[in-house]
Amino acid sequence: MNDGLAEAGERRVGWAARSMPVLQAIAAGFAEDRPLDGLRIAACLHVTAETAVLMGALKAGGAEISLAASNPLSTQDDVAAVLSEYGMAVHARAGVDRDTYYRHIHQTLDIAPQIVLDDGCDLVNILHTERTELLGDVAGGCEETTTGIIRLRQMAAEGALTFPMVAVNDTRTKRMFDNRYGTGQSTLDGIMRATNILLAGRTVVVAGFGFCGRGVAERAKGLGARVVVTEIDPVKALDASLQGYDVQPMSRAAEIGDVFVTVTGDRDVVRAEHLAVMKDGAILANAGHFDVEIDVRALEDMAQSVNFGVRPNTDEYVLDDGRRLLLLAEGRLVNLTAAEGHPAAVMDMSFSAQALAVSWLAREAARLSPGVYDVPPDIDVQVARLKLAAAGIVIDELTPEQEEYLHSWRVGS
Amino acid sequence: MNDGLAEAGERRVGWAARSMPVLQAIAAGFAEDRPLDGLRIAACLHVTAETAVLMGALKAGGAEISLAASNPLSTQDDVAAVLSEYGMAVHARAGVDRDTYYRHIHQTLDIAPQIVLDDGCDLVNILHTERTELLGDVAGGCEETTTGIIRLRQMAAEGALTFPMVAVNDTRTKRMFDNRYGTGQSTLDGIMRATNILLAGRTVVVAGFGFCGRGVAERAKGLGARVVVTEIDPVKALDASLQGYDVQPMSRAAEIGDVFVTVTGDRDVVRAEHLAVMKDGAILANAGHFDVEIDVRALEDMAQSVNFGVRPNTDEYVLDDGRRLLLLAEGRLVNLTAAEGHPAAVMDMSFSAQALAVSWLAREAARLSPGVYDVPPDIDVQVARLKLAAAGIVIDELTPEQEEYLHSWRVGS
Amino acid sequence: MNDGLAEAGERRVGWAARSMPVLQAIAAGFAEDRPLDGLRIAACLHVTAETAVLMGALKAGGAEISLAASNPLSTQDDVAAVLSEYGMAVHARAGVDRDTYYRHIHQTLDIAPQIVLDDGCDLVNILHTERTELLGDVAGGCEETTTGIIRLRQMAAEGALTFPMVAVNDTRTKRMFDNRYGTGQSTLDGIMRATNILLAGRTVVVAGFGFCGRGVAERAKGLGARVVVTEIDPVKALDASLQGYDVQPMSRAAEIGDVFVTVTGDRDVVRAEHLAVMKDGAILANAGHFDVEIDVRALEDMAQSVNFGVRPNTDEYVLDDGRRLLLLAEGRLVNLTAAEGHPAAVMDMSFSAQALAVSWLAREAARLSPGVYDVPPDIDVQVARLKLAAAGIVIDELTPEQEEYLHSWRVGS
Amino acid sequence: MNDGLAEAGERRVGWAARSMPVLQAIAAGFAEDRPLDGLRIAACLHVTAETAVLMGALKAGGAEISLAASNPLSTQDDVAAVLSEYGMAVHARAGVDRDTYYRHIHQTLDIAPQIVLDDGCDLVNILHTERTELLGDVAGGCEETTTGIIRLRQMAAEGALTFPMVAVNDTRTKRMFDNRYGTGQSTLDGIMRATNILLAGRTVVVAGFGFCGRGVAERAKGLGARVVVTEIDPVKALDASLQGYDVQPMSRAAEIGDVFVTVTGDRDVVRAEHLAVMKDGAILANAGHFDVEIDVRALEDMAQSVNFGVRPNTDEYVLDDGRRLLLLAEGRLVNLTAAEGHPAAVMDMSFSAQALAVSWLAREAARLSPGVYDVPPDIDVQVARLKLAAAGIVIDELTPEQEEYLHSWRVGS
Repeated sequence: MNDGLAEAGERRVGWAARSMPVLQAIAAGFAEDRPLDGLRIAACLHVTAETAVLMGALKAGGAEISLAASNPLSTQDDVAAVLSEYGMAVHARAGVDRDTYYRHIHQTLDIAPQIVLDDGCDLVNILHTERTELLGDVAGGCEETTTGIIRLRQMAAEGALTFPMVAVNDTRTKRMFDNRYGTGQSTLDGIMRATNILLAGRTVVVAGFGFCGRGVAERAKGLGARVVVTEIDPVKALDASLQGYDVQPMSRAAEIGDVFVTVTGDRDVVRAEHLAVMKDGAILANAGHFDVEIDVRALEDMAQSVNFGVRPNTDEYVLDDGRRLLLLAEGRLVNLTAAEGHPAAVMDMSFSAQALAVSWLAREAARLSPGVYDVPPDIDVQVARLKLAAAGIVIDELTPEQEEYLHSWRVGS
Repeated sequence: MNDGLAEAGERRVGWAARSMPVLQAIAAGFAEDRPLDGLRIAACLHVTAETAVLMGALKAGGAEISLAASNPLSTQDDVAAVLSEYGMAVHARAGVDRDTYYRHIHQTLDIAPQIVLDDGCDLVNILHTERTELLGDVAGGCEETTTGIIRLRQMAAEGALTFPMVAVNDTRTKRMFDNRYGTGQSTLDGIMRATNILLAGRTVVVAGFGFCGRGVAERAKGLGARVVVTEIDPVKALDASLQGYDVQPMSRAAEIGDVFVTVTGDRDVVRAEHLAVMKDGAILANAGHFDVEIDVRALEDMAQSVNFGVRPNTDEYVLDDGRRLLLLAEGRLVNLTAAEGHPAAVMDMSFSAQALAVSWLAREAARLSPGVYDVPPDIDVQVARLKLAAAGIVIDELTPEQEEYLHSWRVGS
Repeated sequence: MNDGLAEAGERRVGWAARSMPVLQAIAAGFAEDRPLDGLRIAACLHVTAETAVLMGALKAGGAEISLAASNPLSTQDDVAAVLSEYGMAVHARAGVDRDTYYRHIHQTLDIAPQIVLDDGCDLVNILHTERTELLGDVAGGCEETTTGIIRLRQMAAEGALTFPMVAVNDTRTKRMFDNRYGTGQSTLDGIMRATNILLAGRTVVVAGFGFCGRGVAERAKGLGARVVVTEIDPVKALDASLQGYDVQPMSRAAEIGDVFVTVTGDRDVVRAEHLAVMKDGAILANAGHFDVEIDVRALEDMAQSVNFGVRPNTDEYVLDDGRRLLLLAEGRLVNLTAAEGHPAAVMDMSFSAQALAVSWLAREAARLSPGVYDVPPDIDVQVARLKLAAAGIVIDELTPEQEEYLHSWRVGS
Repeated sequence: MNDGLAEAGERRVGWAARSMPVLQAIAAGFAEDRPLDGLRIAACLHVTAETAVLMGALKAGGAEISLAASNPLSTQDDVAAVLSEYGMAVHARAGVDRDTYYRHIHQTLDIAPQIVLDDGCDLVNILHTERTELLGDVAGGCEETTTGIIRLRQMAAEGALTFPMVAVNDTRTKRMFDNRYGTGQSTLDGIMRATNILLAGRTVVVAGFGFCGRGVAERAKGLGARVVVTEIDPVKALDASLQGYDVQPMSRAAEIGDVFVTVTGDRDVVRAEHLAVMKDGAILANAGHFDVEIDVRALEDMAQSVNFGVRPNTDEYVLDDGRRLLLLAEGRLVNLTAAEGHPAAVMDMSFSAQALAVSWLAREAARLSPGVYDVPPDIDVQVARLKLAAAGIVIDELTPEQEEYLHSWRVGS
């Protein structure tokens, strides 16, 4: 390992830690109580500075850790270097190919984990299909993403899941803050770094109006863009419309958009029929977990030629009719690839919930049957309370009379 | 009944009906299918034009209806007149005293209802305490408000509730649209009609950041105000802060606010200690269901004199130290009292859900044990779908490949 | 004059005065210095509570006042009553016909004014065409509106204007605050009072993107509407687009709008060709000074029948093809007719500038040749400074070093 | 010159050119008409891709060009390389020291310019103080920045300016678009690239509420921040307050801010007394032209140690009391240093105005006396019209009746 690399990593992790006061407070508590003493943890997460702070907290709690990357493009090599130096087994390198990616997950599993942390369900999937010999040791785990949760619920429904998994993604904290504010800002940040276009006055099409899509729409609007939303859920579509967004089917949005951001959790949201009608110069970015939301293969098929790297993380596809479509980050997560992913301040909340969930699993897993579990709600409240305190924000407490009023149904109008 | 009054009511109801295309579509279906044929319904709701459209839909479905007002101040007498003319038993008059208010509820219950519709739980409460002889006939009911649901859940927890109640308030449609957009706009509308103050540049304190509070905060901000939010829930407080609002405890907010809006569902949110430090000219308004959120008694105790009606729905309390505090609508619902309540377009959604929920209860109540039930989610989706259609908004449908992808967990990254 | 009316007027004026601290501070100074002692002033202004506070300030300065209404629909009769009681000659009554309107202006001019205050240039126009015998006495005057200024500049260009007129409308304070924030809020307020529609999710077309149009667009957006802007000036159109608004020609906007607001200062902005393609239920409102912006005659010609007063200030025009178009306030100023005009807080600024401009004219008019004059810029700054002080807002002062830096060009990079 | 460098420069300039359709249209016209045939132009501008497109347009018009950098930190070396290759004399390199910076300006002047283009007035200043022998040749010039205009007006007032200068900065297009939208977005972009902090929920203090400050405030708000504005002009301060911003003196803002952005055009806006009370972790950025707005010397004096480069373009100053203040881009233009300056789309407008102004000067300079001139207004309108056309936006044209109405003052109410 390169010394300069580890040093750069240390600086980067130190910077992130400043914006993660909640996780640092939890780490301090863990260092005292050692709730994870001797526990083997295998994690498949984006190998970033913020993840490093989480790993530090778990290690402070006594855990032995093995880490793989959940995405070949998001690994910060300097962070991997410093984590290795801290004594964790890190199997991650930026830009590896598919085979290496999966080999890294296998190597990570070699620790024979008792707790697993996953981000997209690849590690848990491999455990249940190719490393079934390790299943017996696993007490439980946590999953970070909506996409992963969908897969886990499906596994549970089919009876295939053999241990309890906590849906860290489904905390109020995660959905409200991480998904909305984190994805929102970092996606626009990625688009600006990749293209340096002026967003004011542009038409930005946001496909999907879940928490992430909402965040992307808000930030695009906040930067002066006109926002068009596409949805498949009538309730979300109606909500978007009442928030003042222009709701359109993708077939129509494709004709008017200057920038497209997919954030649906589904595949082929932008596909050949849409590419066929887009304006010259249209920009395509994906902020959903997997690189399936934009049909890149269709784009390749339609292109006469490709100019790779016309800007950093920007490839230009020249179509037969002369139109040029710009694909950012190869259709992978634009906020992680072209920018730096979620700011540490939001990761502070979701990773704090995760640290507390791991500690809860360490205590409770034995009592839980296989399945997908919500994070206990008091963890959420605890994280929010610590975050407010760190920001110097004071809120109200119920008076005894107010407490009583809320619990009484006998009071009339 | 006065003819001119009924005519004015008919015009008013006709106007509302234009903005309620979903409920009218449902009424048309009801008229054909008669799903409520012969059913006796007792309703305790705000007697407004939109309620009249709902009553019309239920009547079209075959129901026999008896109606009381859920708030002494919100009754539109002309609407009451026209409903009487349509053959419903209406027990409501604007501005009645407390005794008459409760007498009206009793008269309404005389129908011996099979289904009850409530808005704040007063009718259901009286049924369970003073009219227990009628409980045997009641198959089930619907409750409109958060406040009412809190009381019902408490009753259910204590084993006191004797029939199934559907929490109409808890639909996504109701919370997202009615609470957020309806309360938001109409509350600011009420404040403007009562005071005609310029909101730009004013500091508006919003107590409570639930869906209603969020809506009020958004509209106040949209009118150019600086918004301060007070909360007791750390997660909501954090969310408010991340949306750019200034989060403060009420003790501090009281010192800096120009306008105060309470929308918490709890009592004494603005109380003596806060009134003591407010600025001269501060305006106090309540948008929560009951008139308990501002401690009006404390205000009366502190006042040296009161100038009633310095503006419509605005009373001026002159304190010992010369400061003047302005109480809107006597601390009752400012959006209903000083303006016209929720615009018909939002009531369209919640009342459509309610109409469909009544129809569902008519079919299913026999199979349900006592307790609080969610509205079946497909009702929500059906309402949203009809609303989008009425607005001419087309949304996407999943392709078979997308449908399959969402149900598969075997696809990797 | 009716006693109760004057009492109601006094209450109304007292309410406005609370939100006009700057004008009250100026009135206090005037009462001491008597800068207008014995001066005869003829004013043609909207006879509202705020105007009454201005009249009070001028009277405090020693002026003798005669007042007519600048718009037949905006007169508040109770305010007229209380002003009469205060000893001013008031010639105004709500809802008078065209002949009476002009007769009132003539009566007002009978005072043989030395200073004139105008709002739309009707009084000055009559002076120069029908009452030329009075021109000799007139030292100068003030004009309130953009429309009036356009007419005055035209008169000046043709050599027809015989005395100096101060373009009160052209102060930064007036354009930025009165036009933008005052017209913005009160126009939407008027639309809500007239129709009680939900604005969230509606498409609001704003014709004209001057300061007034900008204000209307901001408030419509702030209430959750999608805003379409029409313009004829490329620079303003581009600005609107970069602020995220959808810029369209009226021919296209007419097809997609739910609500139309004209605020251009020009005629026939909405005309037959646009009415022909509007959606059923479209709402038409004017916020420009004159009632010429919507071609009401074309609407009448196209209508098969008209239902007057389907809501307060709302008339329904039923067209041959069954579409129903809703005209608010007969196409006159919707914010004055359906709501209460600008909130006192903004009028405080423009009327304070006007009071100081009258005082400046009293001193300087003799030295000025006929023409249109800007308000001296220090009046603007003085008004803003007083307003900030009244709001308790403290701002920075330049340090001597900063002052020097701004005046030096020798400092390099 | 390095071949790879020129190639990278060509790619970068090509990218910018795509977003500059107006300037490209003008260049095409220039290539045909050759309005600058044989003219010697010396320019002192930020050497960026957008400037290169402008230089290309002038060269297409027939000019001979010599170019220096107007800021030592903003030069893109690859752009300099490609311009050299295109046959222009380029005297610019990233990161040069003060002496080299001025030497470059001198070398640029060696062309003996007939037209000068300046950005901050350094070149014009040197011409008038150290290179007076060249003054005789200079027919006129253009100045880009507010700061430069202030210096030029001072020179003109003192009779020191010897030729006409066009205030390109004072076009509506420049102030509205370049200053507001360009500085707004790129400043926030720079802060995000330098720090990757989450802006949602942070308190951002914007010093100065001119067009640039307004843009910064809007974008900060649009990213979820609470914005505090400081000002010295009462009218601008009031405007900020009415737009919903919290207006405070810097002494108070310093205590509550998380991020500070200076954009005033004056020195020492953030100085020792403010640094003394800031929170640990406060971030300091300048978006004003010169690096004098944050008193960096005071910061250095107060610091016990400095950690340079804790993030790219971020230095950490550790104070005696342990507080850490983070200075971005050494107090120089954060949008140019930490991001890429204004997006090409806004530069398109101001540089198009500049190209047309140079062409106008070439025709008219002989008829102009020394002084500061506005850009002729039709240039502004022409630029806006071309930009709308490029964006596919159609706007209305006045009908003959509307045209006539605007020019007639005889029409009454």
